[in-house]
Amino acid sequence: MNPIPADLQIDAGWLLRVQPRAPLRAHSVMVIDGIIVDVLPTADVQARYAPKRHADMTGHIVLPGLVNAHCHAAMSLMRGIADDVVLHEWLQAHIWPREAAHVSAAFVFDGSLLAAAEMIRGGITACSDMYFFPDATARALRQSGMRVQLGLPILEFPSAYAPDADGYLQRGLAVRDSLRDDPLISFALAPHATYTVSDTMFARIVTYAEELGLPIQTHLHETAGEVAAGVAAHGCRPLTRLSGLGALGPAFMAIHAVHCNDNDVALLAGHASHVVHCPSSNLKLGSGIAPVSAMLSRGINVALGTDGAASNNRLDLFEEMRIAALLAKGVTQDATTLPAQKAVEMATLGGARALGLEAAIGSLEVGKSADIIAVAVTSPELSPIFDPYSHLVYAAGRADVSHAWVAGDCILDDRQLTYCDLSAILRLAQHWQEKLR
Amino acid sequence: MNPIPADLQIDAGWLLRVQPRAPLRAHSVMVIDGIIVDVLPTADVQARYAPKRHADMTGHIVLPGLVNAHCHAAMSLMRGIADDVVLHEWLQAHIWPREAAHVSAAFVFDGSLLAAAEMIRGGITACSDMYFFPDATARALRQSGMRVQLGLPILEFPSAYAPDADGYLQRGLAVRDSLRDDPLISFALAPHATYTVSDTMFARIVTYAEELGLPIQTHLHETAGEVAAGVAAHGCRPLTRLSGLGALGPAFMAIHAVHCNDNDVALLAGHASHVVHCPSSNLKLGSGIAPVSAMLSRGINVALGTDGAASNNRLDLFEEMRIAALLAKGVTQDATTLPAQKAVEMATLGGARALGLEAAIGSLEVGKSADIIAVAVTSPELSPIFDPYSHLVYAAGRADVSHAWVAGDCILDDRQLTYCDLSAILRLAQHWQEKLR
Repeated sequence: MNPIPADLQIDAGWLLRVQPRAPLRAHSVMVIDGIIVDVLPTADVQARYAPKRHADMTGHIVLPGLVNAHCHAAMSLMRGIADDVVLHEWLQAHIWPREAAHVSAAFVFDGSLLAAAEMIRGGITACSDMYFFPDATARALRQSGMRVQLGLPILEFPSAYAPDADGYLQRGLAVRDSLRDDPLISFALAPHATYTVSDTMFARIVTYAEELGLPIQTHLHETAGEVAAGVAAHGCRPLTRLSGLGALGPAFMAIHAVHCNDNDVALLAGHASHVVHCPSSNLKLGSGIAPVSAMLSRGINVALGTDGAASNNRLDLFEEMRIAALLAKGVTQDATTLPAQKAVEMATLGGARALGLEAAIGSLEVGKSADIIAVAVTSPELSPIFDPYSHLVYAAGRADVSHAWVAGDCILDDRQLTYCDLSAILRLAQHWQEKLR
Repeated sequence: MNPIPADLQIDAGWLLRVQPRAPLRAHSVMVIDGIIVDVLPTADVQARYAPKRHADMTGHIVLPGLVNAHCHAAMSLMRGIADDVVLHEWLQAHIWPREAAHVSAAFVFDGSLLAAAEMIRGGITACSDMYFFPDATARALRQSGMRVQLGLPILEFPSAYAPDADGYLQRGLAVRDSLRDDPLISFALAPHATYTVSDTMFARIVTYAEELGLPIQTHLHETAGEVAAGVAAHGCRPLTRLSGLGALGPAFMAIHAVHCNDNDVALLAGHASHVVHCPSSNLKLGSGIAPVSAMLSRGINVALGTDGAASNNRLDLFEEMRIAALLAKGVTQDATTLPAQKAVEMATLGGARALGLEAAIGSLEVGKSADIIAVAVTSPELSPIFDPYSHLVYAAGRADVSHAWVAGDCILDDRQLTYCDLSAILRLAQHWQEKLR
């Protein structure tokens, strides 16, 4: 029997498919046309396949590319511009005035290039983004090699991007029309929050989402003040209000979901909705700590997000995995809460499910896209190695990511970005730093 | 006027002296005989000094070397051997049996070499350690170039190191006698915990500490169960018991101090005692969250510790700075709690104070030892840069540390360890991995 021609063979010292969970030693992933066609012992490859390219990752943990389920990529240009201040001051004194003065398609494109470089170097191969000028974000992330879910932003106040909520919605739908032929771009309707979008507009968004088969994502129950103000204004908690408007369901992503009581958790679980947990941002802004353990117990799919670099200040899912796993244990005072394997699942398959992309990405299974990363485990920081899941979450960091592929295309090659011009990006960051200061 | 001969000139893009707090741009640190003799604008150096060596750190943040105020270095060999299990199971089923079977001077030396490589690469120049065979730890850390405070361990149960508490004490004092001529080694008496050391022995330790001028460090109020058991056995909380035994004072380090009520905090503050906050370990073992904000409000000096790599699983003070700063904000729901500058101070000067070494290290002031690190800030992850304190805590990681000096001696040179044989260390880790599995 002749060997089957293949595009790529990745030999893994440790292979974490995520689904199924069990780690494999000395296995290879075979890729044809960007799709995983086989996972087999490395010793068996030669007899069956003739690969064009070969990646020796025998000193590595190989796993699915990480999915950043919530980001504002362009805000990387405002990384560290204001820290250690309360949320309303952070927004009103620091972020919104600068956004009003500077946000443009160029700002968003440049900031998203910077964000893409950071994310790819940190093993993030797919990102759900929500910001003004999403077409600029899409161009920057796709040019860098990433897969992207574009949240089409909708809010009731004017910006350089759109004059009113209807303008945002129409512009977003036009962006979708212009970009929908790219198989690595998907879309979501992204009403900013329950306090910035009216009932009328939410109802329209629900209708469009159903007609177009788009998920809905929104910032929800991020702070105690938001929930209290929602109750004061509408007579019910924001999540209950959204439920009444028909927004919940298996294509709904509740971003943050920090202040969720038992009823909120039950409501999300009952609708099979997704939560995007952003622990660094929630802690840093003093928002609080989401009840992730209760959510997981109720079977809610919890994905991980970095939020934007202005409130994190890193687009680093290794950090979010670690903090999510540690924080859940500290809060419950139970070390068995949110084990390492679960944290890795949240950062990969959990993200894929939240984005509605679980048929394509999130695990290394035959038929899925070859969105794959490799983490080098030969440093003293990662020695000895007893459990690869534990190492990824508790010991490794983004700097240990050496390679990344999206649909079989290598976008990070031994720490070198394939499609990004790093020195040009750093010059752009410097340029905007001087303008924003 | 002839220029003054100097051993080393370090030019800093950003210089964080920690004390005083204000960052400086384009300043240089001048070093003679391992001591900082001047901090001045780089432009003024040439007219005044003739340095033998010159380190161009103009693309870096230069700051004091980090002080890891609590570690069990040798436990690095058990990194990730058991995670996501409750504390008593972790100790009784995983750690203690392996310690009983394997801990020896060789185990401790090899594990401490591994730990030193990790710590130095992460910008830790000084470490307070507590473990069996402290002389082996001292040899390994000093051979690697680090400064070390040796906690001389004392507990009531037998080990390969000593048969009983008195044996531990005597052996510890002998270790001190043999190593006290090394100016980069200091000592502390390290009763393991209130539940493993008797009142009688604590009283003797207090006497020795006073006579020899040694600090006392102990694990304290780490878990709710420990406090409850202490109350049940002794009729008072462990900290109160130690206070009655005369152990508290300005040379007392309370390690962990997770479960501290207002009275406990007041007691520590009243004695000017130090707290070593180990947030990763406390979260990971499900111990809980120390009331750091309350401690800082009462003026307690809070240092940061990694704990051992078996419960963290990284010896990484960048991570502890970040988690400490984020966690304190999340718990208080106040983003102004524990700002970045304070977190950097805790990891440097706070550690120096806790170790009783604030006259020698912890800030970049004239007359202090040149224990210095440099963090490269030219990566996309650290662009743009508005505030160097914010970047160190929220955006940078240990992988960004490029250089480290101890007493003016370069122990990490452009990411290369000067005194460690990394491949030999990795072989040792592999050797012990096979034995411990």
